[in-house]
Amino acid sequence: MPKRANTSAPAKRAAVKLSVKDKNTLAAVQGMAAAVTRSVMRNRDPEVEIPMRSLSNTHYNASKRILQMGKKTTARPLFNLSSAKSFMQTMLVAGGTKRLIEQGKSLSIRGLYYMLKHKIKPTNEVTFENQTDSDAIVEDVEVMLGCLREEMHLYADLRGGMVGDIQFVDSGDLIDCSRLGSGGYQIPSIVEPEVIRFRNTSAKFILHVEKGTVWQRFNEDKFWKKNNCLLTHGAGQPSRGVRRMLHRLHHELRLPVYCLLDNDPWGYYIYSVIKQGSMNLAFESQRMAIPDAKFLGVRSEDFKRCGLADSVIIGLTDSDRKRARQIAEYPWFVKKKDWQKEIQLMLDNGFKLEVEALISRDISYVTEEYVPERLREGRFLD
Amino acid sequence: MPKRANTSAPAKRAAVKLSVKDKNTLAAVQGMAAAVTRSVMRNRDPEVEIPMRSLSNTHYNASKRILQMGKKTTARPLFNLSSAKSFMQTMLVAGGTKRLIEQGKSLSIRGLYYMLKHKIKPTNEVTFENQTDSDAIVEDVEVMLGCLREEMHLYADLRGGMVGDIQFVDSGDLIDCSRLGSGGYQIPSIVEPEVIRFRNTSAKFILHVEKGTVWQRFNEDKFWKKNNCLLTHGAGQPSRGVRRMLHRLHHELRLPVYCLLDNDPWGYYIYSVIKQGSMNLAFESQRMAIPDAKFLGVRSEDFKRCGLADSVIIGLTDSDRKRARQIAEYPWFVKKKDWQKEIQLMLDNGFKLEVEALISRDISYVTEEYVPERLREGRFLD
Repeated sequence: MPKRANTSAPAKRAAVKLSVKDKNTLAAVQGMAAAVTRSVMRNRDPEVEIPMRSLSNTHYNASKRILQMGKKTTARPLFNLSSAKSFMQTMLVAGGTKRLIEQGKSLSIRGLYYMLKHKIKPTNEVTFENQTDSDAIVEDVEVMLGCLREEMHLYADLRGGMVGDIQFVDSGDLIDCSRLGSGGYQIPSIVEPEVIRFRNTSAKFILHVEKGTVWQRFNEDKFWKKNNCLLTHGAGQPSRGVRRMLHRLHHELRLPVYCLLDNDPWGYYIYSVIKQGSMNLAFESQRMAIPDAKFLGVRSEDFKRCGLADSVIIGLTDSDRKRARQIAEYPWFVKKKDWQKEIQLMLDNGFKLEVEALISRDISYVTEEYVPERLREGRFLD
Repeated sequence: MPKRANTSAPAKRAAVKLSVKDKNTLAAVQGMAAAVTRSVMRNRDPEVEIPMRSLSNTHYNASKRILQMGKKTTARPLFNLSSAKSFMQTMLVAGGTKRLIEQGKSLSIRGLYYMLKHKIKPTNEVTFENQTDSDAIVEDVEVMLGCLREEMHLYADLRGGMVGDIQFVDSGDLIDCSRLGSGGYQIPSIVEPEVIRFRNTSAKFILHVEKGTVWQRFNEDKFWKKNNCLLTHGAGQPSRGVRRMLHRLHHELRLPVYCLLDNDPWGYYIYSVIKQGSMNLAFESQRMAIPDAKFLGVRSEDFKRCGLADSVIIGLTDSDRKRARQIAEYPWFVKKKDWQKEIQLMLDNGFKLEVEALISRDISYVTEEYVPERLREGRFLD
């Protein structure tokens, strides 16, 4: 069987057409490999330069309003006991990427781990002990080559969905998200322009909700139709595919993004990642972060404002309080009076509120009153 | 604002058309309420009879090959300190269901919890302490009324997706799952015939895979097109929506179901739930279980058969071993030699294997060789 696969492969693979982006990614991999070979040829010790992904090399660019990486790098020489293995791993991941692009296929990062894992004979050493090792190297190669992992044909788990009046082509199929019933479109992991090309939309904005259950409530009430918007959810912390989709919809179609999340530190954090990017992947902010995203709710003031009953509150834990104080110190929150008030009020309240708590008012209160009112009044945090 | 909602509500709600199933569910709720009222009128202590959901009242029906509930019930009288609260909770959940059906709306079980939670004045008692309380009562009401919770307009989180050549109507929209690109159809939580009506399919079977990442690999290789099948995933343990969808596709469209899961106790367990139903919700097996589902892989024999390398194995933990032995004792596995051999071989191997381990052979080995070969040879467990 393996033989069959191998002999038939070249014929099939010759047909793979590389996109412009594929060619660029491939050129970056080959450039890196060429530099290593050149060193060897010149009798120099081969090494690669990896931009540092540490917090000390991450800063908030206040004018662009996104997290960015600094210019610090570390050398990763082959002939050094502490970096020989990670040098080898870097080459393996870069080589794996090349293979994926040339074959026109993509893989999960877990799949890549299995693809590259093997024993280095005659020793008992394996190339990667576990997936944490290969994931870290994937991030190294991303920043080194200046490519998103999606451009390296690597995908994450797919989570999150979308409905609304938008039409786009996904891998050759024309998708109309206004005609997908109660289920909706499952947002894939790779949503780069090579896969998804936007066609039309009449939507004026995006409402992004935290949970699938809340999304179902909004979809059932046809919120997106009545309010002329797109409706997305991230099944919790949004996946890279969802963030990148929101980013593209926002920047290419100029759709404002409003977030409806739980009133707890986790909800604040989700908003922060959508808006500014994630701390440990600052490199990607430029193509993932949406600095203009707005926080529509649930706000700490809503307990009083919406006349909610005591029975729906959930007490803050110590770790909630600690987390809230940390988030208040984030550079993009620290200078914003509204945000300081918001977080302080949650601490003063001593409780958190889920979006579902609004259901205690009425089944459709959140879709028919709460969100429309805030959109009309422009009542949201920036 | 609340006033506005309340005054406009009756007009809107008068328009709700009840389906035949809605009328049946409503009749069941009203029948239960009428029986309680009748008791009161006759000066008897009101009570409800709840079928017991304990393991002792669950048995395997070997001829139907599904888990079933026995006939044992418990009385839940109002005038009894130990059951007064749960009696009240039962009435609340039944009443909430009535409200949802009459308004033509549905809610998550978390939403229902918030809708029904309130302080019982003038005491400080709340109707439900936490969602665990209301979830248990939802299950009680399901078995008492003989309705699935989906028929009570309650939904769970939505997880899982589908692609393949099938067309159906979902809430008035015609969905063509053969034209949904790389993303696919997000399987909703409620897939009852009132929501989803099948139209056409040319598919000959269903391949159900455990994880979204594996599903993406199969979808990218257009496995469903080449093999004329539907391709589903459950993002791990399949949600109720996914199980019910598989059940309907299997029974109404006569599509065989093949499962591709990890070679570990968790994979066996997922298969067991798809096939026979879940222990604590035996009542629902009749409309969820698929006794004819087949286990295609990953099998314990595959390590040798597929010539996998040592580096892809994951050692069994003590709890894996314990779990495997428990599963081997399940009534539907205990008498099957093949299954006993399968589980014993995993224990003898001392390791488990993920589906992704097959990628170490070749990126598309699993989609182009492993699965097609097993389908051709009829090599699977029953």
